[in-house]
Amino acid sequence: MKALVYHGPGNKAWEEVPDPVLRDPTDVIAKVDTTTICGTDLHILKGDVPAVTDGRILGHEAIGTVTEVGDAVTGLKPGDRIIIPAITNCGKCSYCKNNQPSHCQTLGGVGWVFGHLIDGTQAEYVRVPFAETSVHKVPEGLDDEDVLFLTDALPTGFEIGILNGNTKPGDTVAIVGAGPVGLGAVMTANLCGAGRVITVDLDENRMDKALELGATDKVNAGDPDAVAKIKALSPDGLGVDVAIEAVGVPQTFTMCLDVVRPYGTVANAGVHGKPVELPLNELWISNVRINMGLVDCRTVGSLLNMVRSGRLDARAMATHRFTMSQMEEAYELFGNAAQHRAVKVVITAD
Amino acid sequence: MKALVYHGPGNKAWEEVPDPVLRDPTDVIAKVDTTTICGTDLHILKGDVPAVTDGRILGHEAIGTVTEVGDAVTGLKPGDRIIIPAITNCGKCSYCKNNQPSHCQTLGGVGWVFGHLIDGTQAEYVRVPFAETSVHKVPEGLDDEDVLFLTDALPTGFEIGILNGNTKPGDTVAIVGAGPVGLGAVMTANLCGAGRVITVDLDENRMDKALELGATDKVNAGDPDAVAKIKALSPDGLGVDVAIEAVGVPQTFTMCLDVVRPYGTVANAGVHGKPVELPLNELWISNVRINMGLVDCRTVGSLLNMVRSGRLDARAMATHRFTMSQMEEAYELFGNAAQHRAVKVVITAD
Repeated sequence: MKALVYHGPGNKAWEEVPDPVLRDPTDVIAKVDTTTICGTDLHILKGDVPAVTDGRILGHEAIGTVTEVGDAVTGLKPGDRIIIPAITNCGKCSYCKNNQPSHCQTLGGVGWVFGHLIDGTQAEYVRVPFAETSVHKVPEGLDDEDVLFLTDALPTGFEIGILNGNTKPGDTVAIVGAGPVGLGAVMTANLCGAGRVITVDLDENRMDKALELGATDKVNAGDPDAVAKIKALSPDGLGVDVAIEAVGVPQTFTMCLDVVRPYGTVANAGVHGKPVELPLNELWISNVRINMGLVDCRTVGSLLNMVRSGRLDARAMATHRFTMSQMEEAYELFGNAAQHRAVKVVITAD
Repeated sequence: MKALVYHGPGNKAWEEVPDPVLRDPTDVIAKVDTTTICGTDLHILKGDVPAVTDGRILGHEAIGTVTEVGDAVTGLKPGDRIIIPAITNCGKCSYCKNNQPSHCQTLGGVGWVFGHLIDGTQAEYVRVPFAETSVHKVPEGLDDEDVLFLTDALPTGFEIGILNGNTKPGDTVAIVGAGPVGLGAVMTANLCGAGRVITVDLDENRMDKALELGATDKVNAGDPDAVAKIKALSPDGLGVDVAIEAVGVPQTFTMCLDVVRPYGTVANAGVHGKPVELPLNELWISNVRINMGLVDCRTVGSLLNMVRSGRLDARAMATHRFTMSQMEEAYELFGNAAQHRAVKVVITAD
C-alpha cells in the first residue's frame, strides 16, 4: 500500500510500504477512506516529538471501512464504516475504565499512539488496536466529512477547552487562537449555552471564520488594549468565566491568566514547547483554576449525537480537499494554512 | 480599649485606642473573647502586605460576644456568642450570592478585610460589618477553643486544600507543609474519606503532629528521594491524586507538580511572594488541574456541624495559651513556632 512515511525532521514521503496485518486478537484492519492532517503532524515533522522515529507512518484521524477483524472482536465486521479517533482505549486499565484513555497504562501511559508510537492513518490501510473499545460506527446517512473532525479537533476543543473550562450556560468564554482546536471550542461553546464567545487571534481571516462558526465577538490579539477589550465584554467588566488557550506559546497563556475573572477557569489546549511563568504571587488569592491535558476522545459519541440531530455541523471546518495521491500537496497547503485561509484539509482515498 | 496596632514594617504595639462604634446598619460590635495569630499577620509585620497601613488593628480570627447591633440587624442580639470568620460576606454582590465572598465586590474585590482594610480582632472589641451574613452563632455546649480555628486555618485547609483538590474517598493525598493550614488539610482529608494522607515537611516535629492529627505517612521534604517516596505510596506508583501546597515557595509548588498523577489535582493553599515556573511543555499532556485561592469560609457551618457531632476535634491545633495583655509575647512565640513546637496560640480576654 501507499502511506505518508516520516524520515526524520523535515523529511517525509508518500511511498510504498507493506500492508498492515492483524497482530492482536483485539485488532481490526481498516481501509482508510478519509483522513486529515493535524498541527501535531507539523510539530512531528519539525522534530519536536522525538518519540516518533524514522519509518513511522503519520496521522491519527480517519474514517475507514473494516476489512479484517481479530479473533476477539465480536462487535465489528468487515464492511463496517468506523470513526477512528486519535486516542486508543484499551478498555482494561484503571485510566481507560475511568474513561481517561489519554493516560492508558496498557499503551505506556499515553493513549495517543497512531502516527506516534505505532503506524498511523495517513495510509491506504491501518491496523487499529483495541478496536472495539476505541472506534465508533458511522451512523447511517452521514458521510465521511460529516464525522471526520470528531476524531480530534472537535473533541479536543470540547473536552480540553469547553469542558475543562467548566463552561456553564450564560458564561463569557474567550478562546485565544482560532486554529482547528480553537474553532472546535467555538463550535462546542454554543452547545454548552455560552452567553458570549470571544475569538482572539492575530489573523483576522481566522477570527472571521470563528464568527461564522458561532463566536459572538472578536478581539485582535495584537491590539495593545486586547486584555482590557476582552474584559470589557464580560457583564461586569471583571473578566471572562472561561479563557481557553489554543495556541501553545507563553504569551497566549499569560493573556488567558490576564483576562480570566476571580473564580474563572483557564483551560489550556495548546501544545507548549517551553515553560511559562506562573505569577503565583498574584494568583494565589485569585480562586482561578488552571486545567490542561490531552484529549480522551471520550465525547465522540456525544458529539456524534449532535451531528445526527443537526445541532453540530462538524464539516464546517473543512476548507480544502485532496486525494491521497496528493498527500504531499495537502501537507504543503496545511503547513501554510493562514496564507491559504485553510482550517482543515480533507484527504480521501483515490 | 486595648488593641494590637500595626505601625509599619517591624513595628507593632498593644496599646490604647478608641472603642469601635457602629457605622452601618448591618454592623454589630462584639467583645472579643478569644482570638489567635495567623501566619498572614507575620507577613503583614514584615511589610509584605502594603494595603495594611500604619494604625491598623491586626487580626482576622475571633470568637466574641455581641454588645451592640445596627438598625438592620434582626438575627443577632447583645449577649450572642459568635464565630467571626476571616472572610466577610456582604450577602448582596454576585460573588457573595454565589457563596464566594473571598471576592466580595462590595468590599472592593476581597472578602478578607479584618486586620487588612479595616480594624481587626486582636483587640478588646471589634466592629463586625455585614454581621448577619458573615458570622455564626456558637452552639450551646461548645467553648471558644472548640471553634476558634474554624475562623481561618481549618476552612482554608478544607476549602483551598481538600475541596479544591477534588479529594474523593480512597484518594492518596500529599500535603506539603505541616503548619496550621497543612494540618487543617490533614484533619479534613480524613473527613472526606481520603485513603492515605501523606504529610511532607522539613520539620519532623510538625510531621509528627500531623500523624497525631490523622496523617498516615510522613516523608521528609529534605530527603533527596522525597518525590519518589511520595509516589511510591500511591497504589500504582503513578503519583498522588491530590497534592496540596501549604507553604508558599516555588520549591514546594514544584514538588506538588512532581508528585501528582495524571488526572490528579494540585491545590495551592500557600501564600506566594514570587512567581513560579510552570513546565507547560511537560504538563500540557498531563490532564493535571491546578487550583488556588483565598478561603471563602463557606464551610464554617459544615465544619461546625462536625465539631458538634464529635467528628472533628478542632481544638487539637491549640498548643499555647495567652491572655490579651500578653499579646506581644504571643507574637514572639508564634514568630518562632518551629522552635517552640507551636501550631496555634489561643489568646483570651484578660
